[in-house]
Amino acid sequence: MAADTLINDFELPFQLYDVLDAESLTQHPKFAEHNRETFDAVLDTANKIATNLFLPHNHVADKDEPQFDGKKVSMIDDVKTAFDAYCESGFIAGRYSFESGGMQLPETVMTAVAGYFMAANPSTTAYPFLTTAAINVISHFADDDIKNAFMPRMLTGQFTGTMALTEPHAGSSLADIKTTAVKQNDGSYRVKGSKIYISAGDHELSENIVHLVLAKVPGGPAGVKGISLFAVPKYRLNEDLSVGGRNDVHLTGLIHKLGYRGATSTALSFGDAGECRGYLIGEEHFGLRYMFKMMNEARIAVGFGASIIGYRGYQYSLDYAKDRTQGRVPPHNKPEDPAAAIIEHGDVKRMLLAQKAYAEGGIALCLYGSNLIDRINICEDAPLKNELSELLDLLTPVLKAWPSEYGPKANDLGIQVLGGAGYTREYHAEQFWRDNRLNPIHEGTNGVQALDLSFRKLWQNKGLGIQILKREITQDLDSVCTLKNAPESAKLASKLMPYLGHLHEVLIHLSKVLQTEKALTLTANAQALMNIFASIVVSWMWIRQASTAEQLLNNEIDSNRQDSEKQNFYHGKIQAAKYYIDWELPLINRDIELLKNDNTVCTDMQADWF
Amino acid sequence: MAADTLINDFELPFQLYDVLDAESLTQHPKFAEHNRETFDAVLDTANKIATNLFLPHNHVADKDEPQFDGKKVSMIDDVKTAFDAYCESGFIAGRYSFESGGMQLPETVMTAVAGYFMAANPSTTAYPFLTTAAINVISHFADDDIKNAFMPRMLTGQFTGTMALTEPHAGSSLADIKTTAVKQNDGSYRVKGSKIYISAGDHELSENIVHLVLAKVPGGPAGVKGISLFAVPKYRLNEDLSVGGRNDVHLTGLIHKLGYRGATSTALSFGDAGECRGYLIGEEHFGLRYMFKMMNEARIAVGFGASIIGYRGYQYSLDYAKDRTQGRVPPHNKPEDPAAAIIEHGDVKRMLLAQKAYAEGGIALCLYGSNLIDRINICEDAPLKNELSELLDLLTPVLKAWPSEYGPKANDLGIQVLGGAGYTREYHAEQFWRDNRLNPIHEGTNGVQALDLSFRKLWQNKGLGIQILKREITQDLDSVCTLKNAPESAKLASKLMPYLGHLHEVLIHLSKVLQTEKALTLTANAQALMNIFASIVVSWMWIRQASTAEQLLNNEIDSNRQDSEKQNFYHGKIQAAKYYIDWELPLINRDIELLKNDNTVCTDMQADWF
Repeated sequence: MAADTLINDFELPFQLYDVLDAESLTQHPKFAEHNRETFDAVLDTANKIATNLFLPHNHVADKDEPQFDGKKVSMIDDVKTAFDAYCESGFIAGRYSFESGGMQLPETVMTAVAGYFMAANPSTTAYPFLTTAAINVISHFADDDIKNAFMPRMLTGQFTGTMALTEPHAGSSLADIKTTAVKQNDGSYRVKGSKIYISAGDHELSENIVHLVLAKVPGGPAGVKGISLFAVPKYRLNEDLSVGGRNDVHLTGLIHKLGYRGATSTALSFGDAGECRGYLIGEEHFGLRYMFKMMNEARIAVGFGASIIGYRGYQYSLDYAKDRTQGRVPPHNKPEDPAAAIIEHGDVKRMLLAQKAYAEGGIALCLYGSNLIDRINICEDAPLKNELSELLDLLTPVLKAWPSEYGPKANDLGIQVLGGAGYTREYHAEQFWRDNRLNPIHEGTNGVQALDLSFRKLWQNKGLGIQILKREITQDLDSVCTLKNAPESAKLASKLMPYLGHLHEVLIHLSKVLQTEKALTLTANAQALMNIFASIVVSWMWIRQASTAEQLLNNEIDSNRQDSEKQNFYHGKIQAAKYYIDWELPLINRDIELLKNDNTVCTDMQADWF
Repeated sequence: MAADTLINDFELPFQLYDVLDAESLTQHPKFAEHNRETFDAVLDTANKIATNLFLPHNHVADKDEPQFDGKKVSMIDDVKTAFDAYCESGFIAGRYSFESGGMQLPETVMTAVAGYFMAANPSTTAYPFLTTAAINVISHFADDDIKNAFMPRMLTGQFTGTMALTEPHAGSSLADIKTTAVKQNDGSYRVKGSKIYISAGDHELSENIVHLVLAKVPGGPAGVKGISLFAVPKYRLNEDLSVGGRNDVHLTGLIHKLGYRGATSTALSFGDAGECRGYLIGEEHFGLRYMFKMMNEARIAVGFGASIIGYRGYQYSLDYAKDRTQGRVPPHNKPEDPAAAIIEHGDVKRMLLAQKAYAEGGIALCLYGSNLIDRINICEDAPLKNELSELLDLLTPVLKAWPSEYGPKANDLGIQVLGGAGYTREYHAEQFWRDNRLNPIHEGTNGVQALDLSFRKLWQNKGLGIQILKREITQDLDSVCTLKNAPESAKLASKLMPYLGHLHEVLIHLSKVLQTEKALTLTANAQALMNIFASIVVSWMWIRQASTAEQLLNNEIDSNRQDSEKQNFYHGKIQAAKYYIDWELPLINRDIELLKNDNTVCTDMQADWF
């Protein structure tokens, strides 16, 4: 694969069509105008724009990051060129209806589209992606006036958007935000407060920036139930909706991150020096609930991005390992023998295979999640729709946390494959590693995801989500075991099966523990539960990929042996699945023991003992 | 602990005196002039110089890294000030005899001394440390002329040293180096070739730089047996040993690393533009064997440094976790309750405890290794000396690889504890993480260490090393189990015991496998064997710490309860040991299974399948 190939040409078609059967979505009226050809055309356009306009400045923007002179943010011109091309291609409105100027594309396809841009340049991609996320909230919860004021120009990228949630004193703890919003006679609100780590919070790429700001309306309930959501534009809109003068939203400083340097991360002040006008979205005090409803998509996007950056590091180190010669491999290991490509060394194969398992496992997982969103959206059977929604809710913490834990691990192995070269900034392995380090932190730290899974998602609606998940996994494994042409995958399925039983036992045990004082122990052991749950789900994703590949391989071998590259691709899928099941899955036996024994080592530790 | 406290005041005395009984070294004539007071005075001086002169510019040198204008390397002045203070304190000669101007200190104490400097500023520390490493080689293998020419001025820091091993086309594969050395009539050699990644390879800190260069003398044997070692000074020495004109050693460029930025990493050319004079150390063709004999110390130094950087990240995130408030912990979890320090959250405790287990486990491990060097050096019983040497040889790959794998993991968790702040360059958690990423790579990658363990160290001299190790561990565990006042540690010992049996079974199995074609599988599975071996050794280190702490705690509680801080420290040691044994050790069950089943997933993977 050449260095400027963002994603192996077989990868996304395999995931989309062979594993997920995304083409079947076109049977639904919503997507009836589409077919595989239109999907492919969209993916091809994304690949081209990403390769030609996003990739070339990925490393440049890392070295030459945005600057703030106290008045304006400046950055290299390439970002604007790329952003404009993205907007002109219509991708911001990709998910939206034909009537609103969109392409009415499934979430599954739009996630794959995102893959090319994330692979090319995650920093520049942040600007349009945050806009999409903000549109998503506005379109669902805002009234028509707000929609009309902002949405049309956001869909074209004339206006961009942000999510302004975090405050300096309260990171994950949104209940404690201090930003206030006081209602005025004209129905608008005066917003006052400070926000921090607001990605894309200031720049000159668009005519206006619409911040979605969480704030408290005085007199509301304490804690998370007293939080409201506002659209706060950088520039006010005139009566005729043309862009007017400045609103009192000010950049107080850029944050200097260790990666993702091309994307501004900002500290913003609202209403500090004048009048900051905000527009209530939906109803007062419902703000956090709206945000939570949009979190499934946002969290999948973070997980997918983490997998894609992991994938880039994998491909980068793979190219290096094929090219770089060093040492010898038996039987050609005499001093006179020529040096071998390092990919021939066992330990290098192990490091590459682990990267493949982490990156492509995460890609499969997040595309499954996106596809689930489509299946929910088009489902007309209410009970099934409810089941699928529960399944998505349950999987969401895993879709965010597992890829953002293992994507960076892949990047770490990528550096190691390069050896000394990997430690230099002359090579790019280290940038992938730095960029990806953000993903375990933002959009809810992985610790928060583990708590969400352990205390909420596994039990909500009487555990309906986990019942559905077990049913889906069991169906798939049973089906793999009955296939005639996938014996390797059947072996893998039989290795995963017992773990479903272990998970069941752990959950039965925990359901009792949670009724007792020992429940607190689970706050420290939540990561162990996440490990078990995520590893089973990822194993399932790998068995789905392996069985698909094995069937295609055996079918194609039967017919003819034309495409040896594709056969190699299928072999690789099967082998990566074996790696995951043999090398990664068994690690959770540790976690199973910890939880069954209510291990109290972490909760017993006292702050003074450190 | 205040932010400028490099290492908790209890930590090194506990490791040195309570766990290792380093004071007993003073019973030997070599160290008879010393006592605990002189050791403590040396440690105190190190702590002060490190705190006052090394720490303040650690972050500054990272942002303002050395520059090369084509003629000279420039760097911030603070490096020179710190380097000079280090030299004036006599630390470079710390290990050397009183007669040669040294302090005749044990390796154990000098390693602890190094801890303060590594904690304060690993980059600036690289300059004196590499000088020490070069002196070590010269003092052991060079003839008197070379010793007289270089050593006295290296011991004072007037001259510095480097290790010039790696070449651009051959990283780990020293057999393939191309640098040549041709003998001249005057007995000197003309050296010609290129070296890369030479740390401290150029700077203006000293009057001269003595490069220890690996090169091939034409006509020698192929491969590793045809490599010779040369002292190649940047400036030639006149007849009277005064510093003369330039030798043809030139800096072709600085390498831009992702961390350790204050230390120059260089590409050097030898004899490219003129005459590069080198002086043979020892005999022709024995160069690599000399280097290997010095590798135990060098590898312990890397491992120890990695643990210390891990420790700094741990302390940094610990300070943050005590200070930062966010969210609530039952029973004070109503919205009206004040926010809790994040150290009270279970998942934060887990992340801090893991960091403690990794960092302090590595510190204990490397100090054990240093102490072993002292025990070997003063041992007068030939068979015992031989046994201890075998034990050191066996442990060396673990002493390098385990801390340099887990030190960076601690730094990763350190970032995570800080959340969003951890991702910014305004905080230092990220610098520890970047600095430490070098350690799994240099001084033999961790992949190379796993191969060294799996194919050489475990089997050399009929497995004498592993026999001694098992004897030592078993003795300690048996002894812990008979203690009356350490019941918690006895429980931990009983949990470790079965793993010694598992390791034995794995090794019996592998000893047979290595006789067959399946031996190649172990090149891909060597990391699994390293995991098993290292985790058992680190568990042993933790049980040694826990049992020492538990005895001291129970004794002190019996006498009086004066020093509650010290009691907290002991509790922390016991709890970290429990964490390691319950949370980390069981992970190797995966590796045991892989090796017993001769897992071939990685070796079966074909280059074309990626």
